[in-house]
Amino acid sequence: MEKKVVGVVMGSDSDLAVMEEAINMLTELKIGFEVLVASAHRSPERTAHYSRSAIDRGIEVIIAGAGHSAHLAGVIASHTPLPVIGVPINSSPLSGLDALLSTVQMPPGVPVAAMAVGKGGAKNAALFAAEILANKYPEIRNEIIAFRNKLAQDLIKKSKKIEEQYG
Amino acid sequence: MEKKVVGVVMGSDSDLAVMEEAINMLTELKIGFEVLVASAHRSPERTAHYSRSAIDRGIEVIIAGAGHSAHLAGVIASHTPLPVIGVPINSSPLSGLDALLSTVQMPPGVPVAAMAVGKGGAKNAALFAAEILANKYPEIRNEIIAFRNKLAQDLIKKSKKIEEQYG
Amino acid sequence: MEKKVVGVVMGSDSDLAVMEEAINMLTELKIGFEVLVASAHRSPERTAHYSRSAIDRGIEVIIAGAGHSAHLAGVIASHTPLPVIGVPINSSPLSGLDALLSTVQMPPGVPVAAMAVGKGGAKNAALFAAEILANKYPEIRNEIIAFRNKLAQDLIKKSKKIEEQYG
Amino acid sequence: MEKKVVGVVMGSDSDLAVMEEAINMLTELKIGFEVLVASAHRSPERTAHYSRSAIDRGIEVIIAGAGHSAHLAGVIASHTPLPVIGVPINSSPLSGLDALLSTVQMPPGVPVAAMAVGKGGAKNAALFAAEILANKYPEIRNEIIAFRNKLAQDLIKKSKKIEEQYG
Amino acid sequence: MEKKVVGVVMGSDSDLAVMEEAINMLTELKIGFEVLVASAHRSPERTAHYSRSAIDRGIEVIIAGAGHSAHLAGVIASHTPLPVIGVPINSSPLSGLDALLSTVQMPPGVPVAAMAVGKGGAKNAALFAAEILANKYPEIRNEIIAFRNKLAQDLIKKSKKIEEQYG
Amino acid sequence: MEKKVVGVVMGSDSDLAVMEEAINMLTELKIGFEVLVASAHRSPERTAHYSRSAIDRGIEVIIAGAGHSAHLAGVIASHTPLPVIGVPINSSPLSGLDALLSTVQMPPGVPVAAMAVGKGGAKNAALFAAEILANKYPEIRNEIIAFRNKLAQDLIKKSKKIEEQYG
Amino acid sequence: MEKKVVGVVMGSDSDLAVMEEAINMLTELKIGFEVLVASAHRSPERTAHYSRSAIDRGIEVIIAGAGHSAHLAGVIASHTPLPVIGVPINSSPLSGLDALLSTVQMPPGVPVAAMAVGKGGAKNAALFAAEILANKYPEIRNEIIAFRNKLAQDLIKKSKKIEEQYG
Amino acid sequence: MEKKVVGVVMGSDSDLAVMEEAINMLTELKIGFEVLVASAHRSPERTAHYSRSAIDRGIEVIIAGAGHSAHLAGVIASHTPLPVIGVPINSSPLSGLDALLSTVQMPPGVPVAAMAVGKGGAKNAALFAAEILANKYPEIRNEIIAFRNKLAQDLIKKSKKIEEQYG
Repeated sequence: MEKKVVGVVMGSDSDLAVMEEAINMLTELKIGFEVLVASAHRSPERTAHYSRSAIDRGIEVIIAGAGHSAHLAGVIASHTPLPVIGVPINSSPLSGLDALLSTVQMPPGVPVAAMAVGKGGAKNAALFAAEILANKYPEIRNEIIAFRNKLAQDLIKKSKKIEEQYG
Repeated sequence: MEKKVVGVVMGSDSDLAVMEEAINMLTELKIGFEVLVASAHRSPERTAHYSRSAIDRGIEVIIAGAGHSAHLAGVIASHTPLPVIGVPINSSPLSGLDALLSTVQMPPGVPVAAMAVGKGGAKNAALFAAEILANKYPEIRNEIIAFRNKLAQDLIKKSKKIEEQYG
Repeated sequence: MEKKVVGVVMGSDSDLAVMEEAINMLTELKIGFEVLVASAHRSPERTAHYSRSAIDRGIEVIIAGAGHSAHLAGVIASHTPLPVIGVPINSSPLSGLDALLSTVQMPPGVPVAAMAVGKGGAKNAALFAAEILANKYPEIRNEIIAFRNKLAQDLIKKSKKIEEQYG
Repeated sequence: MEKKVVGVVMGSDSDLAVMEEAINMLTELKIGFEVLVASAHRSPERTAHYSRSAIDRGIEVIIAGAGHSAHLAGVIASHTPLPVIGVPINSSPLSGLDALLSTVQMPPGVPVAAMAVGKGGAKNAALFAAEILANKYPEIRNEIIAFRNKLAQDLIKKSKKIEEQYG
Repeated sequence: MEKKVVGVVMGSDSDLAVMEEAINMLTELKIGFEVLVASAHRSPERTAHYSRSAIDRGIEVIIAGAGHSAHLAGVIASHTPLPVIGVPINSSPLSGLDALLSTVQMPPGVPVAAMAVGKGGAKNAALFAAEILANKYPEIRNEIIAFRNKLAQDLIKKSKKIEEQYG
Repeated sequence: MEKKVVGVVMGSDSDLAVMEEAINMLTELKIGFEVLVASAHRSPERTAHYSRSAIDRGIEVIIAGAGHSAHLAGVIASHTPLPVIGVPINSSPLSGLDALLSTVQMPPGVPVAAMAVGKGGAKNAALFAAEILANKYPEIRNEIIAFRNKLAQDLIKKSKKIEEQYG
Repeated sequence: MEKKVVGVVMGSDSDLAVMEEAINMLTELKIGFEVLVASAHRSPERTAHYSRSAIDRGIEVIIAGAGHSAHLAGVIASHTPLPVIGVPINSSPLSGLDALLSTVQMPPGVPVAAMAVGKGGAKNAALFAAEILANKYPEIRNEIIAFRNKLAQDLIKKSKKIEEQYG
Repeated sequence: MEKKVVGVVMGSDSDLAVMEEAINMLTELKIGFEVLVASAHRSPERTAHYSRSAIDRGIEVIIAGAGHSAHLAGVIASHTPLPVIGVPINSSPLSGLDALLSTVQMPPGVPVAAMAVGKGGAKNAALFAAEILANKYPEIRNEIIAFRNKLAQDLIKKSKKIEEQYG
């Protein structure tokens, strides 16, 4: 898929270590994406402009990762009817509980789809974006199913090793 | 939309008071849906069967609401490549923190899109399902935009009243 | 003070029960204010416009109260160099911990001054706004000192009653 | 005891570092066991099949360790009337609070016996499995009593050293 | 089953409202039990004596419910090799989080099987006791299976009603 | 004991409902006390003066109860070498977790003895004051022992009733 | 600005590693300040004296950073009508949640403006002090606006790099 | 003071790293003490015997440090009318929140005086023991006052250095 259909936004360049889990997963699933740093607080107009123009640029899902009182996903969601997936990042001393509650506890009217805190959440954000896109693009569903099968098979291999170790 | 494209699943009939927020919102957005009680723990096979057959019945998004250690959304997600939206319900003495963490902290590989705890989260689950569907059905995007405009206008009316009260 | 120098913004009209503690305190301290409902998520442009124009309308401090993943104060702060005071409101099942962390854990660069959760925090927001203004308007400092003296004297009266009860 | 009566299941091979505390303790107590990696989410059918067949394979107790929103123990319990002991593993940034609440807050009807988070919990899971088995196998009760006596004696030795250091 | 094989202990008579869920469930499962109030703190010798003598009186499992810093289950476990199931009770202002952590976070060496906070946990404690006993008494396993089938069937009936309501 | 040896201080007259548990317990134990409202924040000099003069007035232990970010016990402790017992009061939406952490997490150098949140903590504060005083006044130790015996006997009576109910 | 208008107080010299973020930011914004170690508990009179005399020394805003049950900001606020900004420091095993709640949950009457936990909060404290001062000193507002523009431009540069990396 | 009047008990020899803060502080204050490892769970009779005999051995205050679901202080308190000071130790993945709640949330009737989590709490436990003893032994009060003066003077010295650095 050449077309860039997912926007991956992070609140700070220091969030890249977490968000590249999403980027790598999208790449593995062969989904086109664009990447951007935009902060809800340090660059509100940039963020608003990006969010409002996304739909016209062909973006179909947005993934937003941020730490602390992570407003990024909610702010993006307020500017677009596109589905927004939020990744809470554990970059403050509170271990990501702040980012989690800031991301998931959206008041009624404007939803954000929250993932788990940190790298696992970033990876899952890409998978969830794929699940959304798969409703329209059947080939993406095949990628998801293939990925899941691989997961299940890897697990069996790893289990085998451990079973033998203690067999 | 006549077609039933959203599955609304709840872990217990006592969750209906919360989940009808999702049901009412889907109705308002004119999205076809089916409703079911299925428990991850008390009826695991029913839940697995429902999840595995959903895609063939034409379901495109699943909303799952549960309380306590809310495994329902995760268990459904494990059985289907469809996007699953989880609504944590505050039915235990821990005020929904248990259901929230059980829903949102999915390990990497199988995502669930978590909403806020309780009624607001249920309403947002319907809106997020609509956002997913809108990628394929343009008329749903129009409904979302109309709903959002109404929200913004209602807010202005309510603000007017308060502004006058203290003007 | 006739001039409206404080903007009191709330994310929903249902927040008024809490935010009127701020309104009443400002009135008691004879500080001019304006009141508004504006949501970070349901009316982002209204919120941005209000925030960006506040300084030109003569507003010198903004108080923002919101519940759930309370982004309102942070979003306002992103659009104005004015000091923004945030009041976390306990309107979700999580008792305001969500609103507290969303308000106080602002990432470095754009501060929000967080108050306590709920009515006490709303009252303190007005007092803190007064403390800010008092740096420029000496008559407000007198009001604060008078209020504090009254607090201390009321406390002594109430203590007397209890002392006598157990004396 | 040659017979394998305890099933030790972990959600990921990376959980082995924690779960080997259970394995070592079972070995020390001379209780036969089998080890398996099975994920509630990545391999739901494998997990269901394992759980449903356990009783027929002669398994009498299952120990399940998982991190994040740890559904594994609950999912296993939903498929078998055998007692299931859950070990919450601290593998996410939330330090195991997520796994703890996901494991312990089971809704009424299908219990899981939760242990402490991490290695101590894994060790105790083996001891609790032994306590269950001891009801049927008197020799295991003897092992438990011997182990406890050793614990108490070791403690006295360690205390002696410290008492002398500060005596 | 005439024989009293389960000991149900509560830290205070005010815990009965929660613990009768366990009592009723044991009755429904036809398991013989004895009930006692014994506090880890207010009657430590009574608690120790009860725990140490339980095995000789024919008790095979102990269920202990307590609130606040709930030490009861741990203290009982320290005096007996019998399996002890702990029910954290939400009787303090901290909603049972205190009782939960006090019950579940047992240090390595002496396990307690923690259930969920409150009434649901008390009910599950009885079910888990049954699962332990069923390893020795096949008729109890039949009761468990019958109870679970009833749960699953009730759920389907309740689902039917809701399905029809929204059909 | 005629002499007033315990100072019971509360941060607000609204804390009396909780603190009278301490007052009643002191009365029951026949320990002389004085009661006062003094706020760490609203009347800092009154609080400092009270604390610094306590030792000369014959006070031997101070009990301080406060809610929110409960600084009262710590502030009193900073002004006197007398032992200070802190009672966290659940008067904010955060259920007393704020008052608990503010009271108990004193930095090294100036200790406060924290009790449980709310009424139970207030009662225990009186008992702990008695334990401190008993080191000097043997008759108070007798009162404590009598009280504990009564507690244990009441418990047995209450247990009897419940035992008969389910016997 | 030669005049020292901000007081930066920390509860311990070990807090300097965090508080120098505030110091550096004030320097960058060209705001005059004084620095002091004063503990609410270890040096209460020094703290009171500093706070009461601050206004006469020309101080206009006080920033107070402390860890554990951080009473420093509240205690300072109790002694001065100046605005006090609190920085919770994560120096205890509870990761700063204790310092956060002790700082932010001030009871009604005497406000403290709480910032985020740790270094980011210290930096923001300086920025918030600047926002307060800017109401009186227009040149400080220019510094804030310049700083914010720089933030936004840095962000764009960093984004560019990442965009190119994945372009 | 030659006489051993303080008992320092720890639940495990691995707690010594924390508890030696208490030991060192007692030494500095010239208070006689004895040290012991005794576990509420692994050696309940040893713990009970130690607690019951303490008063007759001349012990006047007991300090008890433990981690996880720290029952040690509560269990000791149940066996003696002596004042018991509890030190929660952060030895589990939950950072000591478990030990804190297990120690501080004692139900009404049998108090424990809780200190802060970890080393600072251990040091304060010694200081609080000294405050208790000082009611009977005036020379200990002098030691406390001398220690506090030293604290305050050290603070001024450290402040001076920092003041000069930024003067």
